[in-house]
Amino acid sequence: MKIVGTVKEVREQVKEWKKQGLSVGFVPTMGYLHEGHKSLMDAARKGNDKVVVSIFVNPMQFGPTEDLATYPRDLDHDAALCESAGVDLIFHPEAEEMYEKDFCSFVDMTGLTEGLCGKTRPIHFRGVCTVVNKLFNIVTPDHAYFGQKDGQQLAVIKRMVRDLNMDIEIVGCPIVREEDGLAKSSRNTYLSSEERKAALILSKTVALGKELAKTEKDANKVVEAMKKNIETEPLAKIDYVEAVDALSMAPVEKLEGTCMLAMAVYIGKTRLIDNTLINE
Amino acid sequence: MKIVGTVKEVREQVKEWKKQGLSVGFVPTMGYLHEGHKSLMDAARKGNDKVVVSIFVNPMQFGPTEDLATYPRDLDHDAALCESAGVDLIFHPEAEEMYEKDFCSFVDMTGLTEGLCGKTRPIHFRGVCTVVNKLFNIVTPDHAYFGQKDGQQLAVIKRMVRDLNMDIEIVGCPIVREEDGLAKSSRNTYLSSEERKAALILSKTVALGKELAKTEKDANKVVEAMKKNIETEPLAKIDYVEAVDALSMAPVEKLEGTCMLAMAVYIGKTRLIDNTLINE
Repeated sequence: MKIVGTVKEVREQVKEWKKQGLSVGFVPTMGYLHEGHKSLMDAARKGNDKVVVSIFVNPMQFGPTEDLATYPRDLDHDAALCESAGVDLIFHPEAEEMYEKDFCSFVDMTGLTEGLCGKTRPIHFRGVCTVVNKLFNIVTPDHAYFGQKDGQQLAVIKRMVRDLNMDIEIVGCPIVREEDGLAKSSRNTYLSSEERKAALILSKTVALGKELAKTEKDANKVVEAMKKNIETEPLAKIDYVEAVDALSMAPVEKLEGTCMLAMAVYIGKTRLIDNTLINE
Repeated sequence: MKIVGTVKEVREQVKEWKKQGLSVGFVPTMGYLHEGHKSLMDAARKGNDKVVVSIFVNPMQFGPTEDLATYPRDLDHDAALCESAGVDLIFHPEAEEMYEKDFCSFVDMTGLTEGLCGKTRPIHFRGVCTVVNKLFNIVTPDHAYFGQKDGQQLAVIKRMVRDLNMDIEIVGCPIVREEDGLAKSSRNTYLSSEERKAALILSKTVALGKELAKTEKDANKVVEAMKKNIETEPLAKIDYVEAVDALSMAPVEKLEGTCMLAMAVYIGKTRLIDNTLINE
């Protein structure tokens, strides 16, 4: 496994592989890798001849009051996990390699990015679209892997790839959970032991919503029941709970077709997200 | 020479070429081709094994009061000119092929797009960046050719390619002029014979500016002299005359380093542009 820091090195390696007719799978990450990322690498490993992982905490997708400075980092641990997953190349650039001083281009989207996490994180998806677009152009993968845990991000990336005619297949992978149900997230490390217990309210409420949706098709009723459930947890503060169309991320009134029940909830100061697809 | 209308057909053809190790040159156009476009095709023909031309009047780069509906079109003439220039493939899509009903992604830029033409055409460069980004992803050329006539566009495309790590070399080609000096443009067809004569004020003023800049380094003095010269033509109405840095498109006070003297001038209802580089 190689670890490189420049665009040029990635390009040279990938071009060599492509000349040999090898397919390339790509997992873009912000590092501090966990079993969720590992599941993406496993999928990439199965579906491609070569696997590239990027580790880059992208400043452009953090708002001014968000956790860019404190976002957890551990390259040694990450490299070991990648190695064990059979990754061929890690791209780990400095911010200066990705953004020149007079950088001024961006990729953005209307519609899909405006609700859910886009409401409280107004510049987040511009940062995500721009960096993923760049990474796709650098790595030129055949397949790229994203977790359903960031459900809105997955929908946004799929739309960007379709709209901008990027010749890449986006593969969504299921949420990986701790044994007690909490969705794996690098941000779980922020939680105190008391908060860690309280954070279970997210996965429990997602499960409740999924169960209710088996018989109740009124989206509002399901969402209200989910909100009430979250409010039983004193450490939890709701950012949003919504039922949206799985493709357009537009709010739905009826739970028909493939929908996503999605939430963002503060546990103490830590903002966590979780979701489930229904009628898949 | 093939003419195709779908993304799929372009992809299949280009992939076949790339498998054979052939290089691809690309000239994106809005059609109604003239000698200016021909010079781009000639450059592409010289520098590549295969040449692709796109002909697409891109709705996204026209403002609501602009000339989208009346923009001149003549596919038979265009195809003949491409054939004579040794073009291998014309991509001529319908708008529906480029923009699905729920299309919502875009590529845009701060800085470079805000002055000059960006001032009076506020959504223009978002449309240009988005469609050129799409076309680049569809055609995946090694080299793409743009005229210096649209000097700001050339700078914007170069910056987009650099910022978004697109693996394409952008080649700028000199302005092609009529014998009397008028820069070739599809929009020249809008001019009455009286306006056609008046339009010479653009190229004459560009020449004046270039001459003055040989000795006068104060950008403002050169620009003022150019404006005065344009004002001698009763049919001309200045949109802008500016001296800008050739890379950043930022206004300059001193004509040092590579600068662009650029203008947009209405001749009657027709908006024409022209420019020259100094200290190249």
